Amino acid sequence: MKPSRRRFEAGEYLARQAKTRKSMIDQGIDVLVIADPSNICWLTGYDAWSFYVYQCVVISADSELFWFGRGIDAPSAQITTNLPDDDIIAYPDHYVQSAEVHPTEYLAQILKQRQLDTGVIGGEMDNYYQTYRGMHLLIQCLPDASFTDATALVNWQRAIKSPQEIEYMRRAGSVIEEVYKRVLDVAEPGLRKNDLVAEILHASTRGTPDIYGDYAAIQPLLASGPEAAACHLTWDDTPIENNTGMCLELAGVHNRYHCPVSRTLHFGKPSQKYLDIEAVILDAIDMVQEMFRPGTTCGEVATAFTQHIRKHGYEKDNRCGYSIGLSYPPDWGERTMSLRDIDDTVLEEGMCFHFMPGMWFDDWGFEITESMTVTPEGGLMLSQVPRKLFVK
Amino acid sequence: MKPSRRRFEAGEYLARQAKTRKSMIDQGIDVLVIADPSNICWLTGYDAWSFYVYQCVVISADSELFWFGRGIDAPSAQITTNLPDDDIIAYPDHYVQSAEVHPTEYLAQILKQRQLDTGVIGGEMDNYYQTYRGMHLLIQCLPDASFTDATALVNWQRAIKSPQEIEYMRRAGSVIEEVYKRVLDVAEPGLRKNDLVAEILHASTRGTPDIYGDYAAIQPLLASGPEAAACHLTWDDTPIENNTGMCLELAGVHNRYHCPVSRTLHFGKPSQKYLDIEAVILDAIDMVQEMFRPGTTCGEVATAFTQHIRKHGYEKDNRCGYSIGLSYPPDWGERTMSLRDIDDTVLEEGMCFHFMPGMWFDDWGFEITESMTVTPEGGLMLSQVPRKLFVK
Repeated sequence: MKPSRRRFEAGEYLARQAKTRKSMIDQGIDVLVIADPSNICWLTGYDAWSFYVYQCVVISADSELFWFGRGIDAPSAQITTNLPDDDIIAYPDHYVQSAEVHPTEYLAQILKQRQLDTGVIGGEMDNYYQTYRGMHLLIQCLPDASFTDATALVNWQRAIKSPQEIEYMRRAGSVIEEVYKRVLDVAEPGLRKNDLVAEILHASTRGTPDIYGDYAAIQPLLASGPEAAACHLTWDDTPIENNTGMCLELAGVHNRYHCPVSRTLHFGKPSQKYLDIEAVILDAIDMVQEMFRPGTTCGEVATAFTQHIRKHGYEKDNRCGYSIGLSYPPDWGERTMSLRDIDDTVLEEGMCFHFMPGMWFDDWGFEITESMTVTPEGGLMLSQVPRKLFVK
Repeated sequence: MKPSRRRFEAGEYLARQAKTRKSMIDQGIDVLVIADPSNICWLTGYDAWSFYVYQCVVISADSELFWFGRGIDAPSAQITTNLPDDDIIAYPDHYVQSAEVHPTEYLAQILKQRQLDTGVIGGEMDNYYQTYRGMHLLIQCLPDASFTDATALVNWQRAIKSPQEIEYMRRAGSVIEEVYKRVLDVAEPGLRKNDLVAEILHASTRGTPDIYGDYAAIQPLLASGPEAAACHLTWDDTPIENNTGMCLELAGVHNRYHCPVSRTLHFGKPSQKYLDIEAVILDAIDMVQEMFRPGTTCGEVATAFTQHIRKHGYEKDNRCGYSIGLSYPPDWGERTMSLRDIDDTVLEEGMCFHFMPGMWFDDWGFEITESMTVTPEGGLMLSQVPRKLFVK
């Protein structure tokens, strides 16, 4: 008997698969080849750091569903999924990171054996884990199939969260609360940035006595002083400077579900520009929370935000949020909905977003962000980190 | 003035670019489009967690070299590279994660403007960060160019490390020594696995007073009891069990350079099977260290290893090591050389490998691994973690 690590009732996985199949049928897709680890996990529960080699889940519109991956990762599939052994298919190790052969060539043989090679095959054509060569070879090896781009088909199925998923995201929210408590306890000028991150990672992995912390799909991002103009820097050992602001973009994670929350921490008395922008952003969060109801569109939220900050003399030329949930590196966004004017997706109850009104200027930056879920009463915050400019 | 985070002398970057250009000319490539963040960093120093959106470095065989990425990441390029502002090219934010437009369509316009669209363009066709759609659109937008697969061209330039790179890897080795000290201090039956990982991440990020710890391209992998049959599981909150072994695959990291080291930690008196395999693996490491000289091939090392363990009744049907160095998620391997029988690459001084003789059975596993660099005197270990089965 294998041990087991399963996070949802078998019925929830079956419902997800059924929903995916319905969408496949609507789009005329007979077979989907899913290489995105977030989609693989959402469909089957599979969870291991094995996505650096080729792996996928194949699901057909009728009844087939199998995991395909490297031999040494088959035990992880046995432990983390409900799949029968016949539907855990391993390729030999000489296919790993080879210039001569590719796992998708082996996959093509399996698809032929299972008679899945003659209809319309959907692939994730714009995904980190489906390379050009892998897809190109799959297409070449299956001349009787026709291929279509199904990049975000499964991602879209994930948009509305189940009650159990929301529960995991709220638990992730409890984890990020612990993280910011720790940050406020230990951060001080002179501390090496890596020593602060060590505390962040310690707190985010411990979580609470009841809620463990999982790894985030994005490492802690933090920058202080003039480097805060750059929003995606990680750390080095430079000491935290006094009399300047530090932007922190962090997430709590539980069972692979994320709750990102950013805050700005100012050491010493903040100058007026920090206080001014704080007021504008806090108002923006209240406004967006109010708008986060079924029926509003992503674009309406983004436009209202833009108008609000413009009134106060600010501009932001990048999206102010995106859909979140279950994720693997390199991104905790779901790569479906974005809060930007051109996105006319209608919000529905159970959707979850990171509202990200971060602003970066020539030599400083400011971030207060919230993760929330859409409800008929407006946005429900997934965590309760004190919402303000932190000053120490 | 922008702040600066530069890890190598400007001359080292120029030498790397020259070496890459020579290889391009040898292979008849006029322009390379490099999307792998490890290759981008190695060529230019660029370092930020921005690879979840499309970005690349374009290098021509003669004199062009520019960074191309999202607008909000241009400041990171200014901070971490020596590139002049004219060679930091940003695309507008509506290209981010859009189903309608793709950053490579914008890139195609830039290549045309810079008259880089008529020769042979090499792309990383089998890389996480070069999707099928991105490459397909680039090819479509540049009808006057011909395209060739240059997947690991830059990775291969990275194979032989400079003295400064070896120094960073040895610093990473000091970091992993601290990590295992912490593991031995705190690990005990009953501790939640996430609490152990919290300590691991704390130690690996603090590093030493002089050497900061950077994030690893792979999260801590650990599995105990029957789950140790699966080599790539991450943690949850199950307590560490007594009277069983736990496999730990961890790395120290400094300035993005990795030193992976695995150990097995047994709680309670180990059964004979652990002691038997320990002796075989320790002998294997001595043997491989002795063979790790210029002139030996990867395949010879792998074959000697296989013969050695087979003599003792063991089989391993997966590669026993791979090239390491500078890396970003999802893999700390360089995806060039593997220690396996079919790889006839000749070892050269300064190459660095993770020798990975991990063995996984039906309901247990065993890992003692070492990272080492090739020298005329044999393999030089990059860290000095006590090499044995740990027992607590």
